[in-house]
Amino acid sequence: MAQYKLHCFCQSGNSFKVALYLNCAGLDWEPVFTDFMHGATRDPKWREAVNAMGEAPVPEVDGKKLTQSGVILTYLADKTGKFKPATEDERLEALRWILFDNHKFTGTFATYRFMKAFLPNAPDPNVLAFLKGRFDSTLGIVERHLGRSSFVAGDKPTIADFSLAGYMFYPPEESGYDWAKSTPNLHAWIERMRALPGWKDPYDLMPGERIKPLR
Amino acid sequence: MAQYKLHCFCQSGNSFKVALYLNCAGLDWEPVFTDFMHGATRDPKWREAVNAMGEAPVPEVDGKKLTQSGVILTYLADKTGKFKPATEDERLEALRWILFDNHKFTGTFATYRFMKAFLPNAPDPNVLAFLKGRFDSTLGIVERHLGRSSFVAGDKPTIADFSLAGYMFYPPEESGYDWAKSTPNLHAWIERMRALPGWKDPYDLMPGERIKPLR
Repeated sequence: MAQYKLHCFCQSGNSFKVALYLNCAGLDWEPVFTDFMHGATRDPKWREAVNAMGEAPVPEVDGKKLTQSGVILTYLADKTGKFKPATEDERLEALRWILFDNHKFTGTFATYRFMKAFLPNAPDPNVLAFLKGRFDSTLGIVERHLGRSSFVAGDKPTIADFSLAGYMFYPPEESGYDWAKSTPNLHAWIERMRALPGWKDPYDLMPGERIKPLR
Repeated sequence: MAQYKLHCFCQSGNSFKVALYLNCAGLDWEPVFTDFMHGATRDPKWREAVNAMGEAPVPEVDGKKLTQSGVILTYLADKTGKFKPATEDERLEALRWILFDNHKFTGTFATYRFMKAFLPNAPDPNVLAFLKGRFDSTLGIVERHLGRSSFVAGDKPTIADFSLAGYMFYPPEESGYDWAKSTPNLHAWIERMRALPGWKDPYDLMPGERIKPLR
């Protein structure tokens, strides 16, 4: 039995943040399929047994279940030393970007991509435009930042990079964003992440059925 | 000169998270007015000098500027010991709720209230309904949690409480939410927070002109 089990599914970039970290850190882990696309996380029994917040990923670590990718990454980096910020200042800088990511970067992009590509009923165009506008503003902040810094919290990859990169490796046909065309600094950073030993495509690293974007 | 300066404005619940913490922790601080409502944080010069993320609050602490309320609260609790989670498990639990708050609780409510009460042009009703639906789902998770626990991360207030409570003390006419009517567990928790020595109303604790909700 693997040391870490990760409740996850292949469409979830929040799951991928942790799955990619585990793989690049060379840790002994295995995925447990969470059938989010068919409502598993909305089931009250799943919420009682696995996560009251109704979200994946959830790893089982040292006999306890952790939730929130930012907490999981912080816990694993502290425990293993892998991709751990090197100094106290770098730790705060990494946490600053992880919070920004949850609030505005992943926070907006994940919803936008899900509604655009996977929501069964066509989403309201005004809501999509609202989310896209908010994401574009956030994307500009990240693009400028990555013009000044090789990785998110300094010149080496840390847990903050795994957080912000979570949704960046999904194909352009799901979101409509092609980083190579829109944001060269972000694109170059993604290629640096892709070059890390242990990197895999989200659809290869995590279980679940691949779904063709609905629109 | 006060030990801590906080760049903030009275409408900002994210600022209030830190202002209320500083006041309840009995720390020596003073506010510096950031004129967000007239665009100060969108000015490139402000972003260069104060915060590239374009957000308040920003405290000046020990000669450096910190941003992201969750980082500021973590830093101040580690430094002063006030409202610091007591154990490693409690620290992770507090961080879990702080991330959840940034992503979904404050993350949704702050935008909803701002658009509803303060956006100069009337917001799109479909966008408002979308945000309200997402917030109501998150609110249900918090309401259930506070039925099992006196404070967010246990039986004593920690930095996680200051994070989630940031927007809860603004008047019902701004958001349309009256916690006493909608969510009794959350209301009882807010009253426990209001009873902390040092508590003040956001409009009394932070600078700026009070604005009547536009709609």
